Amino acid sequence: MIKRTHQCGNLRKEEIGTQVQLNGWVQKRRDLGGLIFIDLRDRSGIVQVVFNPEESSEALNIADNVRSEYVVAIKGTVVAREAVNPNMPTGEIEIKADGIEIINEAKTTPFYIKDDVEVSEEMRLKYRYLDLRRPEMQETFKMRHNVTKTMRNFLDEREFLEIETPMLTKSTPEGARDYLVPSRVHPGEFYALPQSPQIFKQLLMTSGFEKYFQVVRCFRDEDLRADRQPEFTQVDIETSFMDTEELMAMMEEMMTKVVSEVKGIEIPSPFPRMTYKEAMERYGSDKPDTRFAMEIIDVSAVVENSSFKVFSSTVSNGGKVKALNAKGAASNYSRKDIDALTEFVSVYGAKGLAWMKVEEDGLKGPISKFFADETGTSLSETLNAEAGDLLLFVADKPQVVADSLGALRLKLGNELNLIDQAKLNFLWVVDFPLLEFNEEDGRYYAAHHPFTMPKREDLEMLDSDPGNVRAQAYDLVLNGYELGGGSQRIFERTIQEKMFKALGFTEEAAKEEFGFLMEAFEYGTPPHGGIALGLDRIVMLLAGRTNLRDTIAFPKTASASDLLTNAPSPVSEKQLDDLHLRLNVKNEIKL
Amino acid sequence: MIKRTHQCGNLRKEEIGTQVQLNGWVQKRRDLGGLIFIDLRDRSGIVQVVFNPEESSEALNIADNVRSEYVVAIKGTVVAREAVNPNMPTGEIEIKADGIEIINEAKTTPFYIKDDVEVSEEMRLKYRYLDLRRPEMQETFKMRHNVTKTMRNFLDEREFLEIETPMLTKSTPEGARDYLVPSRVHPGEFYALPQSPQIFKQLLMTSGFEKYFQVVRCFRDEDLRADRQPEFTQVDIETSFMDTEELMAMMEEMMTKVVSEVKGIEIPSPFPRMTYKEAMERYGSDKPDTRFAMEIIDVSAVVENSSFKVFSSTVSNGGKVKALNAKGAASNYSRKDIDALTEFVSVYGAKGLAWMKVEEDGLKGPISKFFADETGTSLSETLNAEAGDLLLFVADKPQVVADSLGALRLKLGNELNLIDQAKLNFLWVVDFPLLEFNEEDGRYYAAHHPFTMPKREDLEMLDSDPGNVRAQAYDLVLNGYELGGGSQRIFERTIQEKMFKALGFTEEAAKEEFGFLMEAFEYGTPPHGGIALGLDRIVMLLAGRTNLRDTIAFPKTASASDLLTNAPSPVSEKQLDDLHLRLNVKNEIKL
Repeated sequence: MIKRTHQCGNLRKEEIGTQVQLNGWVQKRRDLGGLIFIDLRDRSGIVQVVFNPEESSEALNIADNVRSEYVVAIKGTVVAREAVNPNMPTGEIEIKADGIEIINEAKTTPFYIKDDVEVSEEMRLKYRYLDLRRPEMQETFKMRHNVTKTMRNFLDEREFLEIETPMLTKSTPEGARDYLVPSRVHPGEFYALPQSPQIFKQLLMTSGFEKYFQVVRCFRDEDLRADRQPEFTQVDIETSFMDTEELMAMMEEMMTKVVSEVKGIEIPSPFPRMTYKEAMERYGSDKPDTRFAMEIIDVSAVVENSSFKVFSSTVSNGGKVKALNAKGAASNYSRKDIDALTEFVSVYGAKGLAWMKVEEDGLKGPISKFFADETGTSLSETLNAEAGDLLLFVADKPQVVADSLGALRLKLGNELNLIDQAKLNFLWVVDFPLLEFNEEDGRYYAAHHPFTMPKREDLEMLDSDPGNVRAQAYDLVLNGYELGGGSQRIFERTIQEKMFKALGFTEEAAKEEFGFLMEAFEYGTPPHGGIALGLDRIVMLLAGRTNLRDTIAFPKTASASDLLTNAPSPVSEKQLDDLHLRLNVKNEIKL
Repeated sequence: MIKRTHQCGNLRKEEIGTQVQLNGWVQKRRDLGGLIFIDLRDRSGIVQVVFNPEESSEALNIADNVRSEYVVAIKGTVVAREAVNPNMPTGEIEIKADGIEIINEAKTTPFYIKDDVEVSEEMRLKYRYLDLRRPEMQETFKMRHNVTKTMRNFLDEREFLEIETPMLTKSTPEGARDYLVPSRVHPGEFYALPQSPQIFKQLLMTSGFEKYFQVVRCFRDEDLRADRQPEFTQVDIETSFMDTEELMAMMEEMMTKVVSEVKGIEIPSPFPRMTYKEAMERYGSDKPDTRFAMEIIDVSAVVENSSFKVFSSTVSNGGKVKALNAKGAASNYSRKDIDALTEFVSVYGAKGLAWMKVEEDGLKGPISKFFADETGTSLSETLNAEAGDLLLFVADKPQVVADSLGALRLKLGNELNLIDQAKLNFLWVVDFPLLEFNEEDGRYYAAHHPFTMPKREDLEMLDSDPGNVRAQAYDLVLNGYELGGGSQRIFERTIQEKMFKALGFTEEAAKEEFGFLMEAFEYGTPPHGGIALGLDRIVMLLAGRTNLRDTIAFPKTASASDLLTNAPSPVSEKQLDDLHLRLNVKNEIKL
């Protein structure tokens, strides 16, 4: 085989006159006036190769048999190109070929190997190995490599050790649905694939490693979504003796560095901070997209005495009336469009979506008659209403108002093109509640996990008013996506006991479920805390993609389930026997 | 909390006069003449802290309550130490403390936190979080981090991309026992945890990534051994357009760099090479430990006409007679000891172990009477026998001779202290057989995997004499351990078809089992090859450990199965319901 001496995409006019040997794929072949032109592609890019009868008629004949995606080796000389192509990095030169070797043939691919190809995602996933040849996919995985490398180097420079934790672990309570793995050595028992290395990283702090990280695969057996995969990669970090402020500052430095390395953009730091409460009030979300304004405005006080009973009675019953002002959007939304928006918010539990349009001579629309008075004037002022604006209201329980207007805000932001896609708006959301009450079970659950440290000043409320205790927990948000969350952990026995009590555990139950970690904590555990960031999501946002699957080489899909080697399959008879043993049953599983 | 300004182990006399604040664990406390001495430990090392009543009686009182492994914060001044301790890096200084805070208490640990502690491995594993505090364990995990970092940087500099492949994959035939994960979305079907990302990395070559690597967890559901864990970490590498020589040279450069970085030793390269055949003949092993000689010597030709029928009849029946000369070891082994060696080789199938001792006046021992003739003289010459030597013989089928003398050689090497533990003897074993015949199944199996490329010059034997076809496959060996293996892969359809035929697959069966990959290969697959190295084993050997578990933070163990969170556990009722669904059965599993 003609061995590669250079890479296609790196050749420039400085190499003119150089003998080169190239290996790669045929992007396309054209015949023109007795000559054959081949665009040759390798990982570095594309270069034009010309075959002419004077140089080598043998090479020309072989080149004549070549088709798209053939793997070939070429040798020739770099020459200046007559018709410079300014759209190609190699556009000033071409290769005058004097030899070609066909290394492997290729059938006609089901779609072209280029970025702007019209092809369904299902086809792309079925032929993932061809989809991954497309330049934008190659770029995404180069970026993924560079993001990970930058983070690793950053943490290594700060003396963090990457320590691997097990994949076959014990199932832990209080989490999402586990993937289970039947044990052969302990029939009837199961390993669980980790949802996160939480307990192991806390044990590593007890072990005195002080600074741990791991780029680690985690698993949740949940349904597929465009932004959720059952296996995902987490950048997992834990430190001893560092407080929240130090950790947050370090993460800002790390993310700033990552963005600088892979995007060449310097983002300002420290990142803005917002309490959970404020985020819910202003954006109806604990992961607000701050790239555009259109904040949610509380008009409860304005409308509490309104003649529009839907509003006034909601307020008198303890509910809220809040609004969005879609500036200048009145003409964008017909009654039918607004009906669709009403349908949209109903998914979030909203019983209705009231609206008014602002015209030069005042508020218009079905409910405007209730606001022809001072309340209307006051409402217009509060909402900064100007002619051309569309005002949208939800009156309901606070959570429903937040959820529905939060989602509506994002929808309108997209529909009205309010979002500057070039922006990278990092944000800390802080002071998360420690506990969440579950109406169904009639008990509190840990909002993050049972080892999250309450804020010192809220500690005494843990008995009296657990729902209002804030945690030393925070999320890092980018453009409306949660990149990850961190917290300080409880390391003192007395506080941990209070926490278990608030979660409704008896002393015995707490010991049963968490005894192992509690025992470890009695042998000199340092104060510790950490954060976990979703790598797939970080790559997705930095690469400007909207589908998480585009950041994963071989993602799970519902439709292409048995097309890639990445899907479950029926077991063989031998494996079935083995499973019977593992499950401690005899011939009862019929697959 | 008193915040850390310095790290304990880094303080030197240059810091004398500096105010410092330290956080760490109490290694030990001593009271002496009204003073209290604390050895304070953090990840960086240990420093001595002195409390005296003049400086602060309050601090002295608190220090009085402190015990081993308490977590404390200390402030004070670095001062010169009167009695310099040359055994401690910080031995020239100490901290004159003026403040101390107890951050967390500690129960008495079940063993001391130090290297030379007398404790069973079971206890170490039960209290793994304490075991990991010991300096040698901390050092091992620092080394593991540095080995991985060095490899990653090396590969990154050569434009390799780290690409993650799935953990939930399709079960593939022809491998070891898989761990299976029941699917919820496809009841009755199972994911398999990967034994290696082999198929994915080959698909990535088809995708044009050209240079791929991954530090990746792999799984084999096999029984535990000191040198085998069910989950292990592989440094997985695949390249396109590179041949075996280029890849081997690159691996030599990488390993040389790793050893230089973590051991400060420059090892010579290129590494020696030995064919599989030669390794089996001279060392009775495909992973010879070349740190000592004592090679296996074939004496079949010498003894074929010997009057000792056991030898001569073995040769005439197609067997082999081979020997080890344990130089100067005659006096080390009594008859009883040799009986134990006979017992030892019987495990490898040897029916007996013949032996003679060399004395000044000739060969001695039960069979020496058969060798009082020229054959004896010739034997002595062949074996370079000198007074004091112990000669050990196995006469059997070639494989039994190789296995038993190979194992015996290692045993004697250890017992006779022939092995220089400081040596790092890298070795390539090349020209592995492509296929292995399985007597039981009456068919050939791929020695490596079904995509391994035969040597071009052996291709035509694939039909006529498959057992003698050599593969373009090689192993990297260090000190008698296989670090990993690599090969060139088949990328041409015609050769792959021949290979499947040799493996006894019908065309349909081959399509059924490997159709997905075969289809991918038809769209322009480059020549490719790669290697996979066992990271755990590399760390074990470079850290000078003999137990693989010492290189894994939370290993699997048989004895401590439910003591760490790293073990399977019974499923909850909810999980059991879920399992019934997954397994497509109703109430039939009784756990």
